[in-house]
Amino acid sequence: MSNEKIPYKIYLEEKEMPTNWYNVRADMKKKPAPLLNPGTGKPMTAAELSHVFCDELVAQELNDTDRYIPIPEEIRNFYKMYRPSPLVRAYCLEEKLGTPAKIYYKFEGNNTSGSHKLNSAIAQAYYAKKQGLKGVTTETGAGQWGTALSMACSYFDLDCKVFMVKVSYEQKPFRREVMRTYGASVTPSPSTETEVGKKILAEFPGTTGSLGCAISEAVEAAVTREGYRYVLGSVLAQVLLHQSVIGMETKAALDKYGIKPDVIIGCAGGGSNLGGLISPFMGEKLRGEANYRFIAVEPASCPSLTRGQYLYDFCDTGKVCPLAKMYTLGSGFIPAPNHAGGLRYHGMSSILSELYDQGLMEAVSAKQTDVFKAAEYFARVEGILPAPESSHAIKVAIDEALKCKETGEEKTIVFGLTGTGYFDMVAYEQFHNGTMTDYIPTDEELAKSIATAPKLN
Amino acid sequence: MSNEKIPYKIYLEEKEMPTNWYNVRADMKKKPAPLLNPGTGKPMTAAELSHVFCDELVAQELNDTDRYIPIPEEIRNFYKMYRPSPLVRAYCLEEKLGTPAKIYYKFEGNNTSGSHKLNSAIAQAYYAKKQGLKGVTTETGAGQWGTALSMACSYFDLDCKVFMVKVSYEQKPFRREVMRTYGASVTPSPSTETEVGKKILAEFPGTTGSLGCAISEAVEAAVTREGYRYVLGSVLAQVLLHQSVIGMETKAALDKYGIKPDVIIGCAGGGSNLGGLISPFMGEKLRGEANYRFIAVEPASCPSLTRGQYLYDFCDTGKVCPLAKMYTLGSGFIPAPNHAGGLRYHGMSSILSELYDQGLMEAVSAKQTDVFKAAEYFARVEGILPAPESSHAIKVAIDEALKCKETGEEKTIVFGLTGTGYFDMVAYEQFHNGTMTDYIPTDEELAKSIATAPKLN
Repeated sequence: MSNEKIPYKIYLEEKEMPTNWYNVRADMKKKPAPLLNPGTGKPMTAAELSHVFCDELVAQELNDTDRYIPIPEEIRNFYKMYRPSPLVRAYCLEEKLGTPAKIYYKFEGNNTSGSHKLNSAIAQAYYAKKQGLKGVTTETGAGQWGTALSMACSYFDLDCKVFMVKVSYEQKPFRREVMRTYGASVTPSPSTETEVGKKILAEFPGTTGSLGCAISEAVEAAVTREGYRYVLGSVLAQVLLHQSVIGMETKAALDKYGIKPDVIIGCAGGGSNLGGLISPFMGEKLRGEANYRFIAVEPASCPSLTRGQYLYDFCDTGKVCPLAKMYTLGSGFIPAPNHAGGLRYHGMSSILSELYDQGLMEAVSAKQTDVFKAAEYFARVEGILPAPESSHAIKVAIDEALKCKETGEEKTIVFGLTGTGYFDMVAYEQFHNGTMTDYIPTDEELAKSIATAPKLN
Repeated sequence: MSNEKIPYKIYLEEKEMPTNWYNVRADMKKKPAPLLNPGTGKPMTAAELSHVFCDELVAQELNDTDRYIPIPEEIRNFYKMYRPSPLVRAYCLEEKLGTPAKIYYKFEGNNTSGSHKLNSAIAQAYYAKKQGLKGVTTETGAGQWGTALSMACSYFDLDCKVFMVKVSYEQKPFRREVMRTYGASVTPSPSTETEVGKKILAEFPGTTGSLGCAISEAVEAAVTREGYRYVLGSVLAQVLLHQSVIGMETKAALDKYGIKPDVIIGCAGGGSNLGGLISPFMGEKLRGEANYRFIAVEPASCPSLTRGQYLYDFCDTGKVCPLAKMYTLGSGFIPAPNHAGGLRYHGMSSILSELYDQGLMEAVSAKQTDVFKAAEYFARVEGILPAPESSHAIKVAIDEALKCKETGEEKTIVFGLTGTGYFDMVAYEQFHNGTMTDYIPTDEELAKSIATAPKLN
């Protein structure tokens, strides 16, 4: 099909929107390792998980056999408010790079949460409401997830309690204010509202917090309140399931124009965006129907796939959560203070970890000054100011396109543009002023933090 | 046509996008009054205007006869990067209000400038480039226009010099940083870079600046530099012409589903959004082909249409610009310091002023606390965090929908959602904290500022 026929932006019609999520675990011969009870060392049962998570979400978490899970109508109606997201042909970027490659990006930033996180937030809020709960608790780092959950809870009239990593709470007052606009209560973490928060504060009085610590607080706040459950914005299988809507739409849009991608690229922190984007394509690869290259891009300052170890670890600093088998830097890992934006979690989705371990996916890391260089370049050429997280994917997409320029190959590159950087201007300012620095942890530092993983491995 | 067939969002296909701007002046029997030379009191000639503006933009400014002006292909290509904007059916808002009214909004906020301003910025940058200029100068208040122009100049590789009202420069460092991302230079106004800036600083040492003052500086900076021209984001006829793309798309989207609006609502500062949105509909009304109600919504703190006078006035504080006949509060008017966001210009587009004077359009004003109440309500129900400016239209659209609830009328209401409020969280914070106040100028205050208009009227 000729280029002329492919518009700048491919929008699916409402009737073409996915009605099912795709569960990639169903097509994996070797399944991801189960969550373990840290006390017994045995797989977590549905009953155990239901103290923390909503019942239907527990069922989704444990379901590794059903390929398709229907998206409830209430969620599909909410999706219609901000989805389908456009699949954009980056004509301007291609021209500027002078590459024969064809570049597409799935842009998830055109909603008030500013990222793809809303796809899972609305699903989790829906199931909480359906179960008759009063509210949910969660943590947020850079703020996208907290914002998304606030929006979702406001829609279903649920109480929303967000523990926000203290350094972000202080540096991103506007994010906090958006959450308040949607009626959420936002507490800087670690806080004195929880026992685990108090304990961490006593041990590390000056700490600016971490995602792992905020998770511990949010879980405690959920299990100690009547009518509350905890929700998480990444890492879990259920989240990747909800995020598969990204990949389903991407595939439908490409199929509509008969386009077959060669390489699919996504940034990876906990794995929700990457997992969602690649899922249906990975399904084809697992079933032997097609072949694709998948590239996970992570920050050099938080390199769980490229420099972590594949073992059972705690999901949180306070060690109140189940154990997950994943590529991890150890739950004691905290990214250097100069790390901007998200992608700061110490571990990686068990699903992606297993796929990576099986050699079905590649991973690379990128330095943040290189990432911001790509971000600014992209903003000027394609007109969208990208989030720091998304810019990891941009960086590697540009690298791949430049390789095509050298070889003359007309590859089709698809990447996930997960969100916008409107709340990340402090980092952009550092980049403009030349005060942004890179930090790559030493082998010794990583060995030390990985040693915080439990000894059962 | 039944409601079921109308999707949440109507997107035009690329091939359905407008190829012409619509020039409403062509259909006006009584034309808007011409710009006058403040020295001679005679209409400005093309030669005189071309010292300040690009040649093709001068031609557009003076053209009140051609109904359609073709949109150059280069501009249409840029439009394809972020247009068409969706026409959204506000199903959730209708349901929440319990109104039989059908509410639609044209959402212009899904681009990095965060507003409709990009529609004219790219056109003005294009003509500047075509003329072989080095760069352009402009002013910005709330920052949307400056951001839009920075993006447009970056695309065409033009130098961009922005004078930003000092109070905004200090309160909105992130807006400034977005402009820097696109390579613009941003100067707080009043500055010592211009003679007029120095003069204003000497007279009012503690001033936090005004749009009128920043305009004076930007014009001076343009006319005293080789290869530069001045560009303006609102008020001018050329800007309303470019912004007619909003109305053209809206009309095409409504026509596609056989929908005829009863009332069309837009916020009004200088008039660029409202003028653009209503233009093709106003054309039908002027030609006697259809009838619509049009409502301009302005802030109670800056009420040019509802409380100003229709006379020739200076467009800027420094009185370096031509005189325009418009509804004005006097070029000496400065909104109270508690006024949040844009819509702070002392006058109103000559085109809209003339249409209003002929009784073809209504105008109302809204208090800012009421506007933010509507903004938060809308954010929670429709999921989009609106700009303070846009929220003026939301407020009145809700009022109209509630009137329909009382009368049982199934009216179709269309309003312009010009942008997002991501850079306005300081104002939202004041609203949440209950520290936001209203200010309505007294008759004496307005009489005093209107007296700053020249005596030739």
